[in-house]
Amino acid sequence: MSIERWVPLVGWLRRYNRKLFSRDALAAVIVTLMLVPQALAYALLAGLPAEMGLYASMLPLVLYAIFGTSASLAVGPVAVAALMTASALSDLATPGSPEYVSAALVLAALSGLILIAMGVLRLGFLVNFLSHPVISGFITASGILIAMSQLKHILGVEASGHNVIDLLGGLLSQWQQVNITTLLIGLGVLGFLLVCRKRLNTWLTAIGVSASTAGLMVKAAPISAVVVTTLLAWGLNLAQHEVALVGTVPSGLPAIGLPSLDQTLWFGLLPAALLISLVGFVESVSVAQTLAAKRRQRIDPNQELIALGMANLGAGVSSGSPVSGGFSRSVVNFEAGAATPLAGAFTALGIMLSTLLLTDMLAFLPTATLAATIIVAVGTLIDLPAVKRTWQYSRSDGAAMVVTLLLTLLHSVEVGIICGVVLSLGLHLYRTSQPHSAVVGRVPGTEHFRNVKRHQVETDERVAMLRIDESLYFANARYLEDTVMALAARSPSLRHIVLTCQAVNVIDASALESLEAINARLCDAGVKLHMAEVKGPVMDRLKQTDFCDALTGQMFFTTFDAWQALAEAIKANTPPLPTQ
Amino acid sequence: MSIERWVPLVGWLRRYNRKLFSRDALAAVIVTLMLVPQALAYALLAGLPAEMGLYASMLPLVLYAIFGTSASLAVGPVAVAALMTASALSDLATPGSPEYVSAALVLAALSGLILIAMGVLRLGFLVNFLSHPVISGFITASGILIAMSQLKHILGVEASGHNVIDLLGGLLSQWQQVNITTLLIGLGVLGFLLVCRKRLNTWLTAIGVSASTAGLMVKAAPISAVVVTTLLAWGLNLAQHEVALVGTVPSGLPAIGLPSLDQTLWFGLLPAALLISLVGFVESVSVAQTLAAKRRQRIDPNQELIALGMANLGAGVSSGSPVSGGFSRSVVNFEAGAATPLAGAFTALGIMLSTLLLTDMLAFLPTATLAATIIVAVGTLIDLPAVKRTWQYSRSDGAAMVVTLLLTLLHSVEVGIICGVVLSLGLHLYRTSQPHSAVVGRVPGTEHFRNVKRHQVETDERVAMLRIDESLYFANARYLEDTVMALAARSPSLRHIVLTCQAVNVIDASALESLEAINARLCDAGVKLHMAEVKGPVMDRLKQTDFCDALTGQMFFTTFDAWQALAEAIKANTPPLPTQ
Repeated sequence: MSIERWVPLVGWLRRYNRKLFSRDALAAVIVTLMLVPQALAYALLAGLPAEMGLYASMLPLVLYAIFGTSASLAVGPVAVAALMTASALSDLATPGSPEYVSAALVLAALSGLILIAMGVLRLGFLVNFLSHPVISGFITASGILIAMSQLKHILGVEASGHNVIDLLGGLLSQWQQVNITTLLIGLGVLGFLLVCRKRLNTWLTAIGVSASTAGLMVKAAPISAVVVTTLLAWGLNLAQHEVALVGTVPSGLPAIGLPSLDQTLWFGLLPAALLISLVGFVESVSVAQTLAAKRRQRIDPNQELIALGMANLGAGVSSGSPVSGGFSRSVVNFEAGAATPLAGAFTALGIMLSTLLLTDMLAFLPTATLAATIIVAVGTLIDLPAVKRTWQYSRSDGAAMVVTLLLTLLHSVEVGIICGVVLSLGLHLYRTSQPHSAVVGRVPGTEHFRNVKRHQVETDERVAMLRIDESLYFANARYLEDTVMALAARSPSLRHIVLTCQAVNVIDASALESLEAINARLCDAGVKLHMAEVKGPVMDRLKQTDFCDALTGQMFFTTFDAWQALAEAIKANTPPLPTQ
Repeated sequence: MSIERWVPLVGWLRRYNRKLFSRDALAAVIVTLMLVPQALAYALLAGLPAEMGLYASMLPLVLYAIFGTSASLAVGPVAVAALMTASALSDLATPGSPEYVSAALVLAALSGLILIAMGVLRLGFLVNFLSHPVISGFITASGILIAMSQLKHILGVEASGHNVIDLLGGLLSQWQQVNITTLLIGLGVLGFLLVCRKRLNTWLTAIGVSASTAGLMVKAAPISAVVVTTLLAWGLNLAQHEVALVGTVPSGLPAIGLPSLDQTLWFGLLPAALLISLVGFVESVSVAQTLAAKRRQRIDPNQELIALGMANLGAGVSSGSPVSGGFSRSVVNFEAGAATPLAGAFTALGIMLSTLLLTDMLAFLPTATLAATIIVAVGTLIDLPAVKRTWQYSRSDGAAMVVTLLLTLLHSVEVGIICGVVLSLGLHLYRTSQPHSAVVGRVPGTEHFRNVKRHQVETDERVAMLRIDESLYFANARYLEDTVMALAARSPSLRHIVLTCQAVNVIDASALESLEAINARLCDAGVKLHMAEVKGPVMDRLKQTDFCDALTGQMFFTTFDAWQALAEAIKANTPPLPTQ
């Protein structure tokens, strides 16, 4: 029981059978075909040797299969993590250099340790503070940055940079060095992949191919582009035409070993590792939850933290780049029928076989082909209409999204996401610090009370009923004081104020002090304070204090009770104006 | 109208008359008597020459009278600002040195500019994020630190430090140097002041003195201690017994001039200036609001920012230390009858006269006397029972208070207050990220719905009604997904989930996406999602989106409507279990 909690594999492996095996094996073959070019491409995007993408698709997948809870999540190198890796490391060393590679392994191991620690300490809730608009703006901006960073491979020039300005500047300064052969290959693959994505499915179903086969053939388009352009490069000896090829990829499996233990490096990479961990986790959990729900299954987010952490730790000790759960590969894995996390382990086996057998061939793969597959793949990340949609729904959500998007594009991924998170928290706190409240009156003949500004309602100039539409806590406590005292200052004939609290879920210590201050000040001004519809848990707490005794007025069960009682009190005994 | 908005003096000066003048003048005399020793003492506490406290009680008070909106607030040097000044400057220069004095003027001017900028930009709401427990913990810790920092003057030794550990260490290492004469003066004054505070009022009223005269005599106790010990020091030539005296205070008015314009200094002091501004503003506004409410008046917090800013700017250009609204002096000012802000300007006149006439005498004032008056004065700041009270009311408020208190005592004022604010915001966000929710059922025979765990209620295994007790925003959006999907996963016979939303004041873009995801996942699982009691403003927003169309179930006006409709739907047509 205890082992099963930490190692879910122990639980489901007992029920493993031939049927599940055949489903997992089929999914693994399909995902392997998709993963080989992606693994190479994302390693190059991260500024790492191509084989590190393959290494990141071996041990990490096996570890995820042991510790993970999602049957469908396809772990491995992903585009956004690759972009963030490049951004984090480019200040430390030259891309591709031994120091750079060494730092990448530290980054992976550190991300792994952070994720495991968060899982063990059950800190998964921390990702809740990455709001949807921030994540969405960040992912869209990352997609644009990744696509732009691949243009140099398609143009056959040298250019680098981690924001739109640097990337554009680099490309423009190099436009005279464009390699026509490379450009033709790049545009050819790009056109082919786009046509496959947009039309192939329709064409195939039109000629009678079944929908599922057609879907698989569409997914296989990148691998056929890889095969064709590799054969072209080999047959026509394109290296002589200065077409950049992937080049020698060492055959064989990665060595296992500890990453560098340089303390300065570890501390320096901490912020970047934290961001990569959080972003990777949010994306992985979102896709895993969505896919699990389709089969009415559930995943355990805190166990996912541990599983993704083990996968990254595995990458760090086996020469792999940082890994995460990939969106499109997971969907393919799911649709191909993956039944247990073992599908991932079988994929790792497929990648190992490919590494042992195919490296001679992969050496002839043009980088322009990889760039074209990346550009098409990240197209699904870019969702610009979401900006307009979010802005229309809520200005503050829209603002957080736009700021994240623009800062990521124009400055860097780190600054973009951090500013987005801080802004979204700040806007949320600002909003709740000025909560909506409304003076309400009785809808004639009913027990309902509505906003006096919107409805024809009954009121009494000696009684004001204020409905508060937010929990009361320190950030809005003084706002409440202002609102109530302004109400009291406006009408000299006022004798009673009733706060109706059906939307008040919490009254914290600051708000309690404010209520005490309001009560005392209203008392000085000859006005009684009452409360109505206070919730059970809130009331339980108030009863522990002497607020209820100090309250000049009463606690009413409903707003209507308050209305009736005060109307009677006023009728029975209109008190004289207090002398001031 | 426009001038009056920025310079409130223009408004009320037209209505000024002899009666108001005599009230203001009387209040000014009393406050002056109280302020002279306090101004000297707080300057010494801040590590500044004694006269800077007097200078801070001239121009700043006149400027506050022009721009302020509170008739009672007594601006000038205060204990907490003095402590924060000393803490901010001690790393930069030796206390009392020209560089130190110069930095203090920059600190005052910078605080002034920050406050003015906040007022003009209407950023007064920022102080709402300083919660009561954090402020209260901070003020108590400051009181303890100030009292401890004064012990050296009473013992007649040299010791410094900005936390309890350093202060205690300094005092213990010096215990052999204790000056007995100084100690006798210090303990004598301390005993006298404590007896006056605790007993004098009772004694005086017992022998027939009127309550108000007795109150004023109690307030005058410090000034009589100052007069007596000064005469003693002069008559007995105590300087020869190595009793520390205030020493030569330059007679005359301060020079007006710009503070240092050293950029590094300005940037370095920015964080400290921000903290002093915010803390000073919170304290000033609290006392001003409390006093204004007693006369059913109101103050304008954003105009107060400008007025306090002008006062600090005035201090910075006229050799004064940072100023703020003092709690005890404001209460005295109010009780003495101050009717307009001119009372403050008259106090400034009183301080000017004192500076011109009394400096020869003040040179003989023992610092031990001043230390004793400070210790007694800050006694009112220390409120340790509040810690217990706050902890009992709310664990998270109590934790924020204890952390602020301990870090301020054990580390420094800056770290204490910053950690307190961050912790209180974090705890608030954590709490709202895991909101209370309850599955509710119908109280038999009524239209009321209550928590199934607490009450005997009717339920139906095919319908789950979930009441959500918090606004839905990004931090709790995923928590909502978890809660709902766990509910769905628990009971296979479930067909309908109703979210009742009477406590949901906002649904932000993240929560909307979560609701869409929940709706889609429940649909996949054969469960319909309904909503009930959605508030008007929330509904208005939802209607702009296609969520209402996508919703598999219905929007019900009340929970009871939902209950009736679903009961009928189930009775009329029990659908077959969907094949999975």
